[in-house]
Amino acid sequence: MKAKQSIEDLVKELLGGSVRAAGRLITLVEANDSLVPDIMKLIYPHSGNAYVIGFTGAPGAGKSTLVGKLAKLLDSKGKKVAIIAIDPSSPFTGGALLGDRIRMMEDVGIKQNVFIRSLGSRGEMGGLSEATYRVANVLDAFGKEFIFVETVGTGQAEIEVTKLADSVIVVLSPGMGDEIQTLKAGTMEIGDIFVLNKADQAGAESISASIQTALHWAAKHGERMPTLVKTVAIKEQGIEDLWKELELHRAYLIESGQLKIRREKRIRMEVCKLMEDKLARHFNKFTCESPDFEQGIKEVSTDNKNPCQQAEILLETFMSFLKQGDSEK
Amino acid sequence: MKAKQSIEDLVKELLGGSVRAAGRLITLVEANDSLVPDIMKLIYPHSGNAYVIGFTGAPGAGKSTLVGKLAKLLDSKGKKVAIIAIDPSSPFTGGALLGDRIRMMEDVGIKQNVFIRSLGSRGEMGGLSEATYRVANVLDAFGKEFIFVETVGTGQAEIEVTKLADSVIVVLSPGMGDEIQTLKAGTMEIGDIFVLNKADQAGAESISASIQTALHWAAKHGERMPTLVKTVAIKEQGIEDLWKELELHRAYLIESGQLKIRREKRIRMEVCKLMEDKLARHFNKFTCESPDFEQGIKEVSTDNKNPCQQAEILLETFMSFLKQGDSEK
Repeated sequence: MKAKQSIEDLVKELLGGSVRAAGRLITLVEANDSLVPDIMKLIYPHSGNAYVIGFTGAPGAGKSTLVGKLAKLLDSKGKKVAIIAIDPSSPFTGGALLGDRIRMMEDVGIKQNVFIRSLGSRGEMGGLSEATYRVANVLDAFGKEFIFVETVGTGQAEIEVTKLADSVIVVLSPGMGDEIQTLKAGTMEIGDIFVLNKADQAGAESISASIQTALHWAAKHGERMPTLVKTVAIKEQGIEDLWKELELHRAYLIESGQLKIRREKRIRMEVCKLMEDKLARHFNKFTCESPDFEQGIKEVSTDNKNPCQQAEILLETFMSFLKQGDSEK
Repeated sequence: MKAKQSIEDLVKELLGGSVRAAGRLITLVEANDSLVPDIMKLIYPHSGNAYVIGFTGAPGAGKSTLVGKLAKLLDSKGKKVAIIAIDPSSPFTGGALLGDRIRMMEDVGIKQNVFIRSLGSRGEMGGLSEATYRVANVLDAFGKEFIFVETVGTGQAEIEVTKLADSVIVVLSPGMGDEIQTLKAGTMEIGDIFVLNKADQAGAESISASIQTALHWAAKHGERMPTLVKTVAIKEQGIEDLWKELELHRAYLIESGQLKIRREKRIRMEVCKLMEDKLARHFNKFTCESPDFEQGIKEVSTDNKNPCQQAEILLETFMSFLKQGDSEK
């Protein structure tokens, strides 16, 4: 009862604008604490207003700088911004990356009121963890109007961010050598806005032309063609243009009804992830703890029982195990 | 009834030594045909005798040549050998790789009685597909004494092959540039025997010394230290030494009781994979077809219901869906 009381207090503080409460609640929902269902029950009615912008692209394109500069611009316009940075879950590089990132944010001069949080990715392939959705919900309830989600831009997270975000920005830069590779590998299909950062560097014109061509190919039937914005984030050039493109894209999404569709997809993804997560936990518990499972495995080893049939039988045992777990609650 | 009859005939032919029947049954179990449970029921009592050897290592180390030469040696000793080659599931490269592999096998002069089959990997990361276990069971029942499983040696398959194989051979070569990287990235923990192939090339001595040092580090408490064999597969040098090491490792596994433990682990893995596979199919069916799921998602979108609670409720709906599916069978 005491814990629940303090959660209600924390959420009240969050809704009242307490940065400390936001930080504590994010820590709880990220850790997948047992209080999560209670927290989300209180949070959810206050969320659904934030606009989520996903940033992806290969390392070295200047993504973090761009994210920082755009946050600074929106902050100067009086908008409330939060940044969720997805870092690879490595105990070695994680800390270093986070340090770099925070230093970068300080460099670009973001004020206290831009909320920055670094989250680990799920697994080696860098998928978005289920916690990303919950953290976004907390920031949403906290009153943030824009939530930036920055991924490492390799692997699974890049695809998954498209399911979480309202607008997806793909950041490219000249001289990366593998631009055309990047464009080929499915990246063209996920971007709503492409940013050619470091546009003052050699080769910018030719890569810009390649991207323009690729955009025509990437345009989906009946949907808006993605646009290209050139920036030099480090010099704060083109950031205002990017903001204008974002506003245009948002207006398009609202008018076309696409925003509603995207958000329904996001909810579907979130609920599926939650269900899969719960199911996987129950399954691990079953295979680790159930004497029935042990007995079933033993029968295959010693009595030469058919694994296919045994899997079928054990799946039914697992279902009874689930039911039992329910009644124990 | 007719299908079942012909499966019984096929299995009879398999047990009688028909290569054609083996090929057809493998195709059926690989395709995850609806007849799989019936096939496995007939196959399983005749399996459990084959010794499974996993081969892994970075591309370019000469793995396929080594596998071919070892198969040729065992064949000349009158042993019955089958090769399962795991290829990345790419519609583009898959065919080419398979072509290369078959040409390579022809080059090394493997006779008709070495059974070779190429299997796709699971997903982009190249995990072993669940079908690998079933194909190994068919080849086992077919009377093959040694089943070689060759993986592409990157990603998930490398780890998973250790759970399928009795002995794991890691193939390395000098001049690959990233040998030390390879040794660092967890490969040292999975090998029972390390092969330094292309041992006549420059740099072989120094990499050999590095591996020897690493083997001391890799030795698990109470377990046999992995050994190193030098080969020049293309010149058929060291293949007999590798075979001797394999025999020593097998003798060790039997005497120490480790073989029994490894096979129990393999069965556990196989049953878990089967259960997960079935569960995932049911889950996909539920999210694609169930009107209850659609309704649940809709309630989150329109009535602003909490996704956490909704996932909990839908998980119970999913369990009823599973039960229902059972009664429909």
